[in-house]
Amino acid sequence: MTVRQLALPELVAACVELGVPSVGLWREPVQSYGVEASAALVRDAGLTVTTLCRGGFLTASDPGERARALADNRRAIDEAATLGTTTLVLVSGGLPPGSKDLHGARQRVADALAELGPYAQRHGVRLAIEPLHPMYAADRCVVSTLAQALDLAERFPAHQVGVAVDTYHIWWDDTAPRQIARAGAGGRIHTFQLADWTTPLPEGVLNGRGQIGDGSIDMREWKGHVEAAGYTGPIEVELFNEPLWARDGREALAETADRFVRHVLPPPEDAVTP
Amino acid sequence: MTVRQLALPELVAACVELGVPSVGLWREPVQSYGVEASAALVRDAGLTVTTLCRGGFLTASDPGERARALADNRRAIDEAATLGTTTLVLVSGGLPPGSKDLHGARQRVADALAELGPYAQRHGVRLAIEPLHPMYAADRCVVSTLAQALDLAERFPAHQVGVAVDTYHIWWDDTAPRQIARAGAGGRIHTFQLADWTTPLPEGVLNGRGQIGDGSIDMREWKGHVEAAGYTGPIEVELFNEPLWARDGREALAETADRFVRHVLPPPEDAVTP
Repeated sequence: MTVRQLALPELVAACVELGVPSVGLWREPVQSYGVEASAALVRDAGLTVTTLCRGGFLTASDPGERARALADNRRAIDEAATLGTTTLVLVSGGLPPGSKDLHGARQRVADALAELGPYAQRHGVRLAIEPLHPMYAADRCVVSTLAQALDLAERFPAHQVGVAVDTYHIWWDDTAPRQIARAGAGGRIHTFQLADWTTPLPEGVLNGRGQIGDGSIDMREWKGHVEAAGYTGPIEVELFNEPLWARDGREALAETADRFVRHVLPPPEDAVTP
Repeated sequence: MTVRQLALPELVAACVELGVPSVGLWREPVQSYGVEASAALVRDAGLTVTTLCRGGFLTASDPGERARALADNRRAIDEAATLGTTTLVLVSGGLPPGSKDLHGARQRVADALAELGPYAQRHGVRLAIEPLHPMYAADRCVVSTLAQALDLAERFPAHQVGVAVDTYHIWWDDTAPRQIARAGAGGRIHTFQLADWTTPLPEGVLNGRGQIGDGSIDMREWKGHVEAAGYTGPIEVELFNEPLWARDGREALAETADRFVRHVLPPPEDAVTP
């Protein structure tokens, strides 16, 4: 998503060229290119797929809408399995139009997970509930904190349901470090994503995720938290950023890789000298 | 602030006419009109001042800037005392420009409260820390949850420091009801404010607070929480809303009073029949 201006073959080529070994994919471009074809493209380039984004949107109260959402999530699980990734990221969905019932919406997410978890397990896929920043609680994701996500995930085995830890959504939360520890102890950190917090937020607050290093988040501090919790999996950079999307995609990816080295990896003075 | 298009004498007249018995004031219009004159205006109309908004912005790391902020907060306490309100609302302030040190900023807020609390007490004023929605953590308020606000407040006596409970900032937080209970048990709910959550948020996310009833928040549920916690003080409606500000101020105030009756007070069927 960080470089959605790149078509899938261009993305794969740019990753190979820049030495990015793994890539997180979104469903829409994968579906457009073909799921089997996408899987072959990535595999043949020697890359792996970190996660598939995204399933979810499980808060509808209308029975027909709910059934369609569950069916779509089963398709997403199938797609993840075909792509060879272990992890499908879930964004829970917001309140139904006109509803003020946050409790009910959260309960429907839990009910849906009970249906999807076993299906995911049968396909070798883990679900990662992604708590989104509280500013999305009404219209996108009623799961707003890591604690809420873990309360949901812990109803199920860790190989069925865990969480996605994304700095953009949790950086403000002083309880998040101990929730990361809780998630790690339970083997439930299913992915770790980075985006920086920059202001002012754009209208609709969707596409203002800052390039790594441009904002208020100490990336190394959060990387330290997930590592202390035992996480050894991939680190994804997931930016929704209109100006970044308007640039040359390969250049935007190269910048992102450079920022990763400068703001996420240990600083040069800590590097081990051979 | 809800009807900031009204000059202070118009505001007071409209409150009297509409039967609004108390009013929350902001410092800027009070200073423009004169603090003593504002106090007399409100008092002579038979109104009381619920709270004065706002002090705070206590996160500067520069010593000179910090000293100026403390001096300004002492003036705000003086103004509150002159207006005859018991409560000064504090918005903590965000990160200093370029800083990623959320912990340090929060510590500086605590240090400032230790200086301001005793001063406020000597003037018969209580400080109310207002946790602002996490979307303001970088640029406006590093205190993002009621739990954080109470962790700060509880270092001091309740008659020095408490919290402001505002639905707009906490509605997404499933731990807020128990934090309200904690605040109530300690006598630390120093004001209760309402605004509704409407989407999409405007650019900068400052002036999109919804009119009561227009959004996702169940106002009666939150009123129930503060009442169950023993709160019997005033309920303030505080909207930052560009379209509302563009309307005739008296009409906007009348609409707000009507929405308060329809969405906050008990519904008619619950009314006691004599």
